[in-house]
Amino acid sequence: MNRSDKNEFTEKAVGTDRKWKIVESEYLFNRPWLTVRRDKVELPDGRTNDEFYVLEYPDWVNVIAITRDGEFVMERQYRHGIGLTCYEICAGVIEKGETPLDAAKRELLEETGYGNGQWKEIMTISGNSSTTNNYTHCFVATGVEKIGTQHLDHTEDISVHLLSRQEVEALLENNLISQALMAAPLWRYFCTNGASLQK
Amino acid sequence: MNRSDKNEFTEKAVGTDRKWKIVESEYLFNRPWLTVRRDKVELPDGRTNDEFYVLEYPDWVNVIAITRDGEFVMERQYRHGIGLTCYEICAGVIEKGETPLDAAKRELLEETGYGNGQWKEIMTISGNSSTTNNYTHCFVATGVEKIGTQHLDHTEDISVHLLSRQEVEALLENNLISQALMAAPLWRYFCTNGASLQK
Repeated sequence: MNRSDKNEFTEKAVGTDRKWKIVESEYLFNRPWLTVRRDKVELPDGRTNDEFYVLEYPDWVNVIAITRDGEFVMERQYRHGIGLTCYEICAGVIEKGETPLDAAKRELLEETGYGNGQWKEIMTISGNSSTTNNYTHCFVATGVEKIGTQHLDHTEDISVHLLSRQEVEALLENNLISQALMAAPLWRYFCTNGASLQK
Repeated sequence: MNRSDKNEFTEKAVGTDRKWKIVESEYLFNRPWLTVRRDKVELPDGRTNDEFYVLEYPDWVNVIAITRDGEFVMERQYRHGIGLTCYEICAGVIEKGETPLDAAKRELLEETGYGNGQWKEIMTISGNSSTTNNYTHCFVATGVEKIGTQHLDHTEDISVHLLSRQEVEALLENNLISQALMAAPLWRYFCTNGASLQK
């Protein structure tokens, strides 16, 4: 497939064909950390579904942050959904009025005290394109340095760890980065930056 | 880092340190496609959070299915959460009594009519380790062939497409595989199987 074929293919890859019509819609639940919407929907062929649930969230960000010495700024925290304490990359919510980049820089500084460096968005993904309405913007920040102290939210309990590239690769290879929203950009980063985990 | 250091590191990477205690728990919502639990939790340092919401789901599977000719068996369907119709890999729910492998083989056959071949689980990930309690088991099936016809559920509307490796790589490179639970195993597969998208 040459470049022009590839462009033609990718331009048509995502569309709104076969979009469902929303016949009725109501909010069942609206709390700071959980908004549930119920839609009655109609498919293009006339079939209907009385209860399709969508979880509404603001957009999120996460950051693969790497120091000048090539160390990865990782976090470790307890995750109540799966009941385990895991290594992760920095992640958070985009506040009103922020760009994804603003939010990513703010979250990295608040959660780890690291900042500066060169920033690039490498991926935009959905946690579950069927049931959630938001996207996660994934950044790589290289050449970051310690410029402040950690400032955590009320219920956050995060420790910061500088890991080598080999350690992060070992976590990925062994499925120890549990969260898909973090595993996807990390695999993409290593895949397109000459990972030593190439087989 | 040598192999024994790596093992020691990865064995301690995931734990239950700093686990939260559940003080109270109630189900707010229990429908076939949405179960919401509210926990009142206590952190190890005594801080409490009165409303932490967990979305309970059964475990899921997905499958990177590749024919003997090296074509990828992809699906296209409308996803109401993000309001777009996208290319995806086959995915579904593990039914009671099924192993993840059973479920993956059943879903591929039902949604695409493809089966047989060699199967391997390459990844287990969480859609959101903070708010969801389930895992997705990700398989690669090579050498699959058309052995039946599509049998869809009541509200499914899925078309099947055989794409080349280059086309799937183009989708990934352009962020057109929206769902993280699918992007993560695809990036892992290409990363560890000599992707031509290596730069």
